[in-house]
Amino acid sequence: MKATKLGSHIRNEFPLFANNKKIEDGQIKPFSYLDSAVSAQKHISVIKAMSHHLEYDYGSVHRGAYGVSVRSSQMYENTRTIVANFIGKSVKPEQIVYTRGTTESLNILANGIAEEYLQENSRIVIPVAEHHANLIPWQQVALRKNCELAYIPFEGKIGKELRLNLSEAKKLITKNTKVVSLAHVGNVIGQINPIEEVIALAKSVGALVVLDCAQSMTCIEEDVFALGADAIAFSPHKIYGPSGIGVLAMSKELIERLPPYTFGGGMISDVTLEGSSWTQGPAKFEAGTPPITEVAGLGAAIEWISQVGKIHIHDHAAALAAEFLSKVQEIPDIEVFAPGTGQETIVSFRHKKIHAHDLATILDAENIAMRAGHHCAWPFIRFLGVDALIRCSFAAYSDKDDIELALAAIKKASKIT
Amino acid sequence: MKATKLGSHIRNEFPLFANNKKIEDGQIKPFSYLDSAVSAQKHISVIKAMSHHLEYDYGSVHRGAYGVSVRSSQMYENTRTIVANFIGKSVKPEQIVYTRGTTESLNILANGIAEEYLQENSRIVIPVAEHHANLIPWQQVALRKNCELAYIPFEGKIGKELRLNLSEAKKLITKNTKVVSLAHVGNVIGQINPIEEVIALAKSVGALVVLDCAQSMTCIEEDVFALGADAIAFSPHKIYGPSGIGVLAMSKELIERLPPYTFGGGMISDVTLEGSSWTQGPAKFEAGTPPITEVAGLGAAIEWISQVGKIHIHDHAAALAAEFLSKVQEIPDIEVFAPGTGQETIVSFRHKKIHAHDLATILDAENIAMRAGHHCAWPFIRFLGVDALIRCSFAAYSDKDDIELALAAIKKASKIT
Repeated sequence: MKATKLGSHIRNEFPLFANNKKIEDGQIKPFSYLDSAVSAQKHISVIKAMSHHLEYDYGSVHRGAYGVSVRSSQMYENTRTIVANFIGKSVKPEQIVYTRGTTESLNILANGIAEEYLQENSRIVIPVAEHHANLIPWQQVALRKNCELAYIPFEGKIGKELRLNLSEAKKLITKNTKVVSLAHVGNVIGQINPIEEVIALAKSVGALVVLDCAQSMTCIEEDVFALGADAIAFSPHKIYGPSGIGVLAMSKELIERLPPYTFGGGMISDVTLEGSSWTQGPAKFEAGTPPITEVAGLGAAIEWISQVGKIHIHDHAAALAAEFLSKVQEIPDIEVFAPGTGQETIVSFRHKKIHAHDLATILDAENIAMRAGHHCAWPFIRFLGVDALIRCSFAAYSDKDDIELALAAIKKASKIT
Repeated sequence: MKATKLGSHIRNEFPLFANNKKIEDGQIKPFSYLDSAVSAQKHISVIKAMSHHLEYDYGSVHRGAYGVSVRSSQMYENTRTIVANFIGKSVKPEQIVYTRGTTESLNILANGIAEEYLQENSRIVIPVAEHHANLIPWQQVALRKNCELAYIPFEGKIGKELRLNLSEAKKLITKNTKVVSLAHVGNVIGQINPIEEVIALAKSVGALVVLDCAQSMTCIEEDVFALGADAIAFSPHKIYGPSGIGVLAMSKELIERLPPYTFGGGMISDVTLEGSSWTQGPAKFEAGTPPITEVAGLGAAIEWISQVGKIHIHDHAAALAAEFLSKVQEIPDIEVFAPGTGQETIVSFRHKKIHAHDLATILDAENIAMRAGHHCAWPFIRFLGVDALIRCSFAAYSDKDDIELALAAIKKASKIT
């Protein structure tokens, strides 16, 4: 298969770019969207799939015997197969739950694992670099069940080679550890965590492993269930798909054993005035009318990514990130916070004289979008010794022109101050 | 203002109808969608608003300083005002929470109220006719907190005049009652519950009142917060808007006092390795990336409904329901389950010789969509002494031709058996 050209070659397949050029002093400033790690722009096939669903096939799922409801239900169930294939060979459609986002997926896991697997003094282990969505739910569960929450530290130089400290992880993952939860790829500095090693450590003490794959689903082709993961969570909106939907994939044991998180229609076996019992399978976790049109959009997003190739997208984004990293750190007063392995698709940095928020605003004036702030990871931001970082993240539609424009804007900002 | 013509006059504004005609033996069978109570079809302005958002303005909300993020955030916040105005004058934008559906809204309420207001032996009162989404969360809370869950029965003849038993409600809403939760409009037989009287009873003992408005938001113009309601829940997908989003409106006291339901990014004040604190306002209940495009669709749906007029839609649908009721009950073997006040927009019935599921399948062959089953209300279905009902529900695009086609199909089915 000849690799599809990415970057500016495919930007016309993402309508938002053409609609966000700025014209200033007769000069066209293209839109450099360098914040795909917060949410990716949508491929035209996703937008069309959603409109088509609403114009041709919209019906409530699993509730009607009539045409549109049957077609919507089939699309909804068939997309579980598409999602399962996308995750890896070791997961089956009946292990795929549609949620409202990675955040809800992780909350379902933390709550359910607490009910079924944690006792007083059980240990939960997570890295110190986790996003709040994979930190607060465990913190709350630890408080409620009187469990211990242990954090794996990071090692290496902060500016470069920063990585999860595996030897500390080995010490922390003790016999009373019941669950280890970590990001596959970090959202602050983009490090690719050594999940194979962490899974092996967890399995050696019989602990469950949860992976937050919010940042890794477009770029890493690895059958994480085959490696031993018990559950993964990700968000379609970060893989060129719609908002309003999330994915949770669980081992057969977890999907059977975890209790529901939200109660309502569609997840029951029986309801009487005295009590209720639950259905089995994904429906147990999908109370109420689910995100139907959003499932149609998710299917289209995965189809597009699969056509292009996950690895191809990753290699493209990682090469751009490596180039940006090598050039941005040469600008005076710029301090980078990067693992620097050449495999990351994110480069976080700060300017010693311009606050990250101010720099983001200056970049916006040049029609360049980067995110500044704590990136929903306060403990890690403090660990890094800063109060905010500016994050530049690359995706399928990113290109060298984005890098040149961003570097020029940062240099210009440096001169002003 | 001249009232907009509804029914078949506006069906061309709902693309799904033109795309779901059936041609059989050279005869065109239009699509009679009589299941809007499960989910309404989408107005073209909703579909266009969502596509436009994705093509021009998509960005994550509250996380970026750049153009698309700022525009998405403004749209997201401005829509709170649109939603508040739609609910009534007594509610403010800062009391509007975007959730994932009525089901999640009611779960947030049941859990939060349990934490903050319920003690052992506190009483929760709900009608026996509630949808599972407004029954199971309270049942679970009652089990967890060792509270008492009391059910208000119904009175009147089952076929006609069935209504909530107010004198029993008065007896049940005792001094230890802390919360009364009920549907504004019932989803099984479409009864309009006497919320004014129930709210007065609840307030007389200092109990909170929760309203499930999933079935009432297109048809009833009543400022429920002015009447004394403390919280309401509804689903945009039932008011011609998108799936994947819900609304929860709460009193200022509740929005301040209730704890978060789901933990993650965007809802914190601070997070350290030891503990976390929450932000105030709607964001406390909106952890993670919210349904952004869906908020754009919700705004468009409300704008369209407001242009047409809620009362106008209600009167149109209620007149059709009354006509269908009077005619369907004349068909031999048909038993109706209807309050029969002329104000309902739903008519539920069964055929004594054809199971509801079979009848729904026969209707589908004639391109008529009605829902058969327990309507996510097992206790009420059993109270009615049946195992399933077929429900015919009317909406803005329904018309007399739907009635005639449905009646003819039911008569034809009767002859076959």
